[in-house]
Amino acid sequence: MIRHPVADAGLPERLARQLEFCLELDRVKQVLRRNTLTDGSRRENDAEHLWHVAVMAAVLAEHADEPVDVARVMTMLLLHDVVEIDAGDAFLYDAVARAAAVEKERVAAERIFGLLPVDQAVELRSLWEEFEQRSTADARFARALDRLQPMLLNAAGGGGGWRDNGVVATQVAANEAVVARGSASLAAVARAVVDGAVADGILPGPLAP
Amino acid sequence: MIRHPVADAGLPERLARQLEFCLELDRVKQVLRRNTLTDGSRRENDAEHLWHVAVMAAVLAEHADEPVDVARVMTMLLLHDVVEIDAGDAFLYDAVARAAAVEKERVAAERIFGLLPVDQAVELRSLWEEFEQRSTADARFARALDRLQPMLLNAAGGGGGWRDNGVVATQVAANEAVVARGSASLAAVARAVVDGAVADGILPGPLAP
Repeated sequence: MIRHPVADAGLPERLARQLEFCLELDRVKQVLRRNTLTDGSRRENDAEHLWHVAVMAAVLAEHADEPVDVARVMTMLLLHDVVEIDAGDAFLYDAVARAAAVEKERVAAERIFGLLPVDQAVELRSLWEEFEQRSTADARFARALDRLQPMLLNAAGGGGGWRDNGVVATQVAANEAVVARGSASLAAVARAVVDGAVADGILPGPLAP
Repeated sequence: MIRHPVADAGLPERLARQLEFCLELDRVKQVLRRNTLTDGSRRENDAEHLWHVAVMAAVLAEHADEPVDVARVMTMLLLHDVVEIDAGDAFLYDAVARAAAVEKERVAAERIFGLLPVDQAVELRSLWEEFEQRSTADARFARALDRLQPMLLNAAGGGGGWRDNGVVATQVAANEAVVARGSASLAAVARAVVDGAVADGILPGPLAP
């Protein structure tokens, strides 16, 4: 059992709690997702996904249909899946697992954000809830990126992330509506990804009419 | 050979270039670093590191000694190692490798940021150079986090990241000065990490006087 590297260092309590939170989040690197990397070589993990969508927010912010606060969108995206440290990754196309995850994720948010000093726990947890509830322009754009990114990776990776999970075109195409709530331009990308993947035979179609 | 998922979709050129950049960055998930995760189970990769330091910027910004723009610090951190897609990870304690990396990283920055539309290529490359040159408060704080994070992970992980690379306490302790240029509070954390790791026998000491 390794002593926590800063637990006994006599640091101010606020700083010690912040570091504890940062170290706890390391575990999100061990949560595997269903999509692959762009080269199809392996599944992506949550930390990699959170990094990727935050970068996409910085690069693609101009495509949001409503004005967004990029810093808020980035912070929301950097943290939105950390509850999966406790709750695990609920597969997007498994409605039963996703319904069951809601309560588990609420409890996880309580514990994980609760490691922080109270003011930051409240602030970051409320940002997490905003993402979950899609209640603002920032959250709608963040969710658009969250849905688009694994589609791009699965398509680039040859469709293994879909094939290994029995996913068909109508399921993936349903993401377009979520993306469209944040960005019409990116919804067109989502549609192009699905059409291209069906045409290439890496995603079983046909699309629903 | 898989067709790029958006290359032939007839998207506006600006958007197509932005997506090409975002997809190219996926490769940073394959660049391994020398430090381990907090459980010591494996080496961390660059994408995981970039995510972790960006989160730390959001949580620890109040400890910067000079006022910082958190959004700029986060963006700088999210991108600072993407040049390693071409240049590889130059080990912090290998001075020869680090000197050789400077030119390789410059060429890599040219190619990778050059995938973007010109205005964004200029903007994000200049943010990358700001980080490299430590010329601003934002860059100094970003570098403090970049140095502190692997120390925390190696210490939490039982020191394997140091042991496997023959690193001793005086080398790790030298990071304190870099951290101190951005944050006195976090420099105290860096010192506590080294002292604790030497006391625990997971980092060969003694410290230089």
